[in-house]
Amino acid sequence: MYQFPSSKDVKNLTIKELAELANKIRQNIVEITTKNGGHLSSNLGVVEITLALHYFFDFEKDKLIFDVGHQCYTHKLLTGRAQECQTMRQKGSVSGFPDISESPFDAFGAGHSGTSIAAGIGLCMARDKLGDDYTVVSLIGDGSLSNGLALEALFSNDEKPRNFIVIYNDNGQSISKNKTGIYKQLSKLTIRPSYTKSKNAIKKIVGGKDSAFGKMFAKCKYQLKKRLHKNIIFDNYGFKYVGPIDGHNLKELFSVLKNAKKYNGATFIHVTTIKGKGYEPAEQNSAMYHGVSKNLQSAKHTFSENLSSILIRETEKNDKIFAVTAAMKYAVGLYDFQKAFPENFIDVGIEEEYAVTLAAGLARGGLKPVVCIYSTFLQRAYDEIIHDVCIQNLPVIFCLDRAGLVGSDGKTHQGVFDIAYLRHVPNMTILAPKDAKEFDLAFEYALSLNSPVAIRYPNGIVENYQNHLPITNENKWEIVDNGDKCAVLCVGNRAIDIALDAKKSSGIDMIIINCRSVKPIDGAFLDSIKHLPIVTVEDGIVAGGFGSSILEYYASSNIKANVQTIGVGDFFVPHATVQEQMKMIGITKENLLKKLETALS
Amino acid sequence: MYQFPSSKDVKNLTIKELAELANKIRQNIVEITTKNGGHLSSNLGVVEITLALHYFFDFEKDKLIFDVGHQCYTHKLLTGRAQECQTMRQKGSVSGFPDISESPFDAFGAGHSGTSIAAGIGLCMARDKLGDDYTVVSLIGDGSLSNGLALEALFSNDEKPRNFIVIYNDNGQSISKNKTGIYKQLSKLTIRPSYTKSKNAIKKIVGGKDSAFGKMFAKCKYQLKKRLHKNIIFDNYGFKYVGPIDGHNLKELFSVLKNAKKYNGATFIHVTTIKGKGYEPAEQNSAMYHGVSKNLQSAKHTFSENLSSILIRETEKNDKIFAVTAAMKYAVGLYDFQKAFPENFIDVGIEEEYAVTLAAGLARGGLKPVVCIYSTFLQRAYDEIIHDVCIQNLPVIFCLDRAGLVGSDGKTHQGVFDIAYLRHVPNMTILAPKDAKEFDLAFEYALSLNSPVAIRYPNGIVENYQNHLPITNENKWEIVDNGDKCAVLCVGNRAIDIALDAKKSSGIDMIIINCRSVKPIDGAFLDSIKHLPIVTVEDGIVAGGFGSSILEYYASSNIKANVQTIGVGDFFVPHATVQEQMKMIGITKENLLKKLETALS
Repeated sequence: MYQFPSSKDVKNLTIKELAELANKIRQNIVEITTKNGGHLSSNLGVVEITLALHYFFDFEKDKLIFDVGHQCYTHKLLTGRAQECQTMRQKGSVSGFPDISESPFDAFGAGHSGTSIAAGIGLCMARDKLGDDYTVVSLIGDGSLSNGLALEALFSNDEKPRNFIVIYNDNGQSISKNKTGIYKQLSKLTIRPSYTKSKNAIKKIVGGKDSAFGKMFAKCKYQLKKRLHKNIIFDNYGFKYVGPIDGHNLKELFSVLKNAKKYNGATFIHVTTIKGKGYEPAEQNSAMYHGVSKNLQSAKHTFSENLSSILIRETEKNDKIFAVTAAMKYAVGLYDFQKAFPENFIDVGIEEEYAVTLAAGLARGGLKPVVCIYSTFLQRAYDEIIHDVCIQNLPVIFCLDRAGLVGSDGKTHQGVFDIAYLRHVPNMTILAPKDAKEFDLAFEYALSLNSPVAIRYPNGIVENYQNHLPITNENKWEIVDNGDKCAVLCVGNRAIDIALDAKKSSGIDMIIINCRSVKPIDGAFLDSIKHLPIVTVEDGIVAGGFGSSILEYYASSNIKANVQTIGVGDFFVPHATVQEQMKMIGITKENLLKKLETALS
Repeated sequence: MYQFPSSKDVKNLTIKELAELANKIRQNIVEITTKNGGHLSSNLGVVEITLALHYFFDFEKDKLIFDVGHQCYTHKLLTGRAQECQTMRQKGSVSGFPDISESPFDAFGAGHSGTSIAAGIGLCMARDKLGDDYTVVSLIGDGSLSNGLALEALFSNDEKPRNFIVIYNDNGQSISKNKTGIYKQLSKLTIRPSYTKSKNAIKKIVGGKDSAFGKMFAKCKYQLKKRLHKNIIFDNYGFKYVGPIDGHNLKELFSVLKNAKKYNGATFIHVTTIKGKGYEPAEQNSAMYHGVSKNLQSAKHTFSENLSSILIRETEKNDKIFAVTAAMKYAVGLYDFQKAFPENFIDVGIEEEYAVTLAAGLARGGLKPVVCIYSTFLQRAYDEIIHDVCIQNLPVIFCLDRAGLVGSDGKTHQGVFDIAYLRHVPNMTILAPKDAKEFDLAFEYALSLNSPVAIRYPNGIVENYQNHLPITNENKWEIVDNGDKCAVLCVGNRAIDIALDAKKSSGIDMIIINCRSVKPIDGAFLDSIKHLPIVTVEDGIVAGGFGSSILEYYASSNIKANVQTIGVGDFFVPHATVQEQMKMIGITKENLLKKLETALS
């Protein structure tokens, strides 16, 4: 491995040396993501920005806040973690996101979108209240800036704290192409000749202050400035706006940061970058290379791969189906659907709240919206799910990709809360198909209902099982394997596989159930097994999860059943492979057998 | 009761007759809120706007979407519900909010902030997709427009649907005084001479198109227009901006709506109104009269009343305490605290997400933030609680007012989900003090922890109980009344009172426990009563709630306990008094005794 300089050493490098360092960093980022998977394009885009920031600031004292956090690799390489970065996202190594428990250089953890300005203002307020002395820098991409939380913070006040710098990393891409309004308004700047150029040109035409024209136009100066900037939104909200500047040009970055550091107010620096910069396949298709699996393959997931084909088939039958996503077109597998039915598709950007309330409006207007979002990101729309969809009992279908354990993205991205946060919402049906074929059945069933349905499914390759019982209004669970000594109630393929494995290796005569209807549960079936020892298995949080609903059922029926639960305990699951995470948690054959044996003895 | 005309009849009235009708409506709104409690100021502010809308549109076909919905009384009076409005918010009568299950005139339900533009765009998209023909009108106040969901929808795209009208009701007040940026930017318009006046004045100075000055200035026309508007934000986002106009002047409203109805695009109509218009005490102090209890008293709540004094006392000892609220200064009881420590207080407006991530930043910077929000509104920040506060284990204290059943505000405002949505989040402590004195102990204990704590408490007057066991790290529950036949585990005063009552009237020798530490639970105590029949009582949702955590505890300890749960079932609890709601749900002495007797027999 190349010996990366420390953050302190960076301050002693020349611009030429920094440019060479940038190349080394890029090479290493490609190596790291090739080996460990991770976020390639976004990291390649901010190498120079990060170097320039480390040149001007001391991030043991000053605070660097990454929005989303998937662009922190250069920062990690320079802050004593270069060695661990080579095994990034692996169990026990460093995370792919900033983490305050990992390094004093990480000012604020991230993983979801739009938090950096709010957290930055909070840190500034605390600093000023406590008489501390540091600068706060928030680095936010164009996709994140359209997020509701980011907008709340941006527009929160027309005064912003002193020594607060927002770097707006504008690669014109977001995760998918970002076409939302706020981005377009800002991007107008970039397609025009640079500010300085225009200003000089106008000076030439108009003449100096003393010329006749000059005097007249001086009155319009404010207007001209506006016209040049095209958008003074940031001036109005307490920021000094600077930009756009080339985010790969260290000289430009230096001259701006030098002034920003001296400036006593808040600065909004608009930087244009190329997502995937320096790695041609990623430059060509940065969205495809946004998140990559090992060996730089764009991730393949059986469930996601089936989404478009299911939607296309159903939309051919029923044109009212309308897919809504929040900047996740590729990741959730909607690309083919959009191509087939562009008019039945909308990508709202990283705006989960808007996606859900918009879908509620679509449903109220007579359409059949299908909201396709990761389990972890849908947390942002928890209130909208309750308030706009479920209270009104509107037929919105949620496809929750990456439900359950997600592996190397780690604690900020685990989809382990969805059963717990959706199960208690009245009118909500929750389905957890065991494979792609059952996903299809689940979707057909969801369409037949006239009420909210969430279909949750994990990442990873999932082989189809042999048998498939239709899903009906009776919410019958499916017997995967019969037995009469004890029962294992499984949510999803991971749980089923463990149970099958446990049965095979132990020979215990267990009945294995695919509880694909997580809510409502199959009460008749539960009644029929009430005399058996029961273990529930899910890769979600135990508190308030599926197993909890089984306990509630028996308690409410006054049945003293013998139920144990397996699932995620009361902690945030760190990065590792899904298999390793299951072991950490106890979603294993061994733990299941231990529980069954205790119960049987 | 005055015979209010129907929506159809309104179309035949003259402006003079409508103005008379407005007076009658105002009188009735004061009567209704005096009798039933409700939202006074906001409803008085939109009488003329609502009348004008009913004059121009047919809201059986066209869609009128109220943001928040607390300003729908005039609409209800005109749409066949005048009689029921007289008993509004009472059990079985009409709700204080729009409700699609109540009337075909209610296009979209509401209760929380910022949903109307998103839902409106959804309805427009559905309309255009299905070839339907109607106009969508969203009525949103200045407070709501700064909400993240509203901003996402507003900036979602630079094109907006046709036949879509947003009426921006600017009373310059929000719930508390709104000083956030986006409002200020818009309000600049209102303090300047009206648009038309300025335009004419400038025409005079500049001359017509053919004058020398005119030609020169024609080039700057766009800039001048900008200057006049001061803000072309809405033009940039696909709206034709009109305003500001006087929202109490029917003539002005008519001329603008007439054009907006004809216009084929999207219109953003900026209307200025006086909150509380026509009722002097409410005009003078609209925030105090935002939500009122019966007899036009500003609501009194023992828990809320104690918040400021606790905070003041603690801040005198420790200046790091910092209160954050989201437009709820009066309602949660922070007014006195703000007066005492203005520098330790921030009201961010109706921006719950920002409030929470800002607080995470404050905590990370070394302060002790206390986020004071209603239980129902904190749902908006569910993801931020997980992601920014709890993953980082930051010491943010949440004061959840109006937790549990809220009474007449009904299903959109019930605080029945908080235990279920907070309990499964790692690192979170949840306290539910039984009275004001224990609130104090809970707060002191929360301050002593260096991790997230939620303190939940209901509305309503709560008498202090006699005894108060200190709250310590051992999370010991408190024995309210001893016994040895069975156990009742209670969350909060409502549950305790029912248990005490049940014991008194039945003589059953029950031990009554105040489970003030909802998370973590008191395992040692649970072990000690495992042989007894147990009933849990909470006024939150049963699914994933407190009772559920008791079931989980015994299951995980392999103890076959005899536990039954009482709490809110799988439905949204409609408006009624809290007592009536408890009866609906079964949080009653009778139900508790029934469960205990079953268990004991």
